[in-house]
Amino acid sequence: MTAWRLTLRTTPEPVPAAVPVPVPEARRGGPSMRVTIADVAREAGVSKTTVSRVLNTKADVDATTAARVREVIGALGYVPSSGAVGLARGRSRTVAMLTPPLTWPWMGEVLQGVVDTVEAAGYGLLLFTCNRGAESVDHFTSQVSARAFDGLLVIEPENTLDTITAMHRRGLPVVLIDDRGHHPEFPSVATTNREGGASAARHLLAAGRTRPLVATGPAGFGCVRDRTAGFLDVLPDALVLEGEFTEASGRRAVERALGDTMPFDSVFAHNDLIAAGVLRALRDAGRSVPDDIAVVGFDDIPMARHTAPPLTTVRQPMREMGETAARLLLARLGGEAIPDEPVVLPTELVVRGSAPDG
Amino acid sequence: MTAWRLTLRTTPEPVPAAVPVPVPEARRGGPSMRVTIADVAREAGVSKTTVSRVLNTKADVDATTAARVREVIGALGYVPSSGAVGLARGRSRTVAMLTPPLTWPWMGEVLQGVVDTVEAAGYGLLLFTCNRGAESVDHFTSQVSARAFDGLLVIEPENTLDTITAMHRRGLPVVLIDDRGHHPEFPSVATTNREGGASAARHLLAAGRTRPLVATGPAGFGCVRDRTAGFLDVLPDALVLEGEFTEASGRRAVERALGDTMPFDSVFAHNDLIAAGVLRALRDAGRSVPDDIAVVGFDDIPMARHTAPPLTTVRQPMREMGETAARLLLARLGGEAIPDEPVVLPTELVVRGSAPDG
Repeated sequence: MTAWRLTLRTTPEPVPAAVPVPVPEARRGGPSMRVTIADVAREAGVSKTTVSRVLNTKADVDATTAARVREVIGALGYVPSSGAVGLARGRSRTVAMLTPPLTWPWMGEVLQGVVDTVEAAGYGLLLFTCNRGAESVDHFTSQVSARAFDGLLVIEPENTLDTITAMHRRGLPVVLIDDRGHHPEFPSVATTNREGGASAARHLLAAGRTRPLVATGPAGFGCVRDRTAGFLDVLPDALVLEGEFTEASGRRAVERALGDTMPFDSVFAHNDLIAAGVLRALRDAGRSVPDDIAVVGFDDIPMARHTAPPLTTVRQPMREMGETAARLLLARLGGEAIPDEPVVLPTELVVRGSAPDG
Repeated sequence: MTAWRLTLRTTPEPVPAAVPVPVPEARRGGPSMRVTIADVAREAGVSKTTVSRVLNTKADVDATTAARVREVIGALGYVPSSGAVGLARGRSRTVAMLTPPLTWPWMGEVLQGVVDTVEAAGYGLLLFTCNRGAESVDHFTSQVSARAFDGLLVIEPENTLDTITAMHRRGLPVVLIDDRGHHPEFPSVATTNREGGASAARHLLAAGRTRPLVATGPAGFGCVRDRTAGFLDVLPDALVLEGEFTEASGRRAVERALGDTMPFDSVFAHNDLIAAGVLRALRDAGRSVPDDIAVVGFDDIPMARHTAPPLTTVRQPMREMGETAARLLLARLGGEAIPDEPVVLPTELVVRGSAPDG
């Protein structure tokens, strides 16, 4: 939150590409430079049989050697082919999931949708969060390599996108919960983020609000760019403040906008946490919601019904997103073709007291 | 919520024992009736070698046979010993976790605490929820049996307690996030539920409230019995309504208490969701909080800061509970002795507008 971008604009500005995570040379090559079990054996100074035993977590490799082999596997980014390992893909009956922090307020719904679907199909679910930066991404890579699973579900990859792309190119089935528009080579499940932003703007416009403040999440997220673009399609004369997906960020956006004495009659917050901060900052500043300023959030987390006043928000079908992504991955593992187009689930505007109908 | 128990009482009433889940005969026996790999082979009509290959998920067993063997493993409740399977315990570097529904609002914090600790130690985390009744418990059993992991973390086992007890007796390291007082044979991490209930009562009493309504969760939970007992230690003249850990339950408790025109000047809700329902029902009934009725919750989930008025509540250190339980299990897997006594983390009363200081 140190680098506020404060811009008055009518169209979304271009977004910088995600910063690439440095990866070892061997990992960059794509299919033509595939790392083999022989590369791992050579680098670790052991036989291919020993590498294979480590991959199969056989008890007859001593712990120090096994640790060294795992380290090399991680460093080289080796992904075992189904022939190279007894725990062959398609036979482990385990699906892995890589998520943002589990404390994000909608993660429980997504995760429960995934677990229900995966368990009903007789699969187990391995969970990774990689929330400790490059070190944990490397750790994830070595876990993927050393422990076979059949496929991977990923929510909004940020630091891990390069790693996942490499795994996917080497044959690991991957389904993203994200907008595939931003990652065209992956099957994906998304919601109508752009239409969701537009629906918030139409609702405010119908209530006579024409000078909105938009308090966004980080522009590195495709969903953020889409929500902003959809909103500006309808209400182009907006004050757009980029921030984070936190309550503190919503509070700061309002304080900043009020401090600059820029007039605004409504706020579109990119998630409900931001909206909660917006509501509190407005109350602290003596502004009445919705009389002075109407507020619309995004997500419809459980908190949204309990804010003062209750929050009008764009609902995302979180559990269905988890279920749908898991079903796609399981279908793929079962040998079915899965749709080439992203599966897009509809958002829905839920009207409550913070922005009543006009 | 069909079976309300409405009781005016000064001491907690005895709680019925958890209803046992029917288990196959072979699973009931304890150590002296241990199911062996030979039992599985005989029942499945295959050799012990074939069972071993399935346990090792070798590619050389055909899928139909493997499925039958897994089914028998699940039906008999067979838990492989570390000698019986190449993926020996202590070598899979995977920990499993069995949780209540992930949509419970504090699950994200606990789970993140576990994932951080487990990933930092180089372990993977297998997640199970078993929220589809006996069928999913059987499925969990077969997953446990067919896929080796080194240890198991469990939150508040209900339907699964018999199954987990059997696994634990057969040598699977288990740590509970729950009050071990109720399950004395397991290592555990708990919070000061009884003291937390007492602190809520002391706070209300100091503010001059002497006629409390207690809206509880299901009495099958140890934490519910402890919170009630601690509260009644301080404020014995309470109206105790047993319910569920939901907003709707809080709403119904208030409607019921108001409908019976029983006078009460305060509410102790067993979690913050119940408290949120209490606040809404009181507002709908025209009662002012805190002037007419003070309200105290339990947990301190993020929503608690956003209710109207913000909620006074007993904070549980959810992330630390997850971290502590994972550390205990990892220490045990590393061969360390772990404490025989439960590890008890302190709760803390957080005072906000719904029940200000007296």
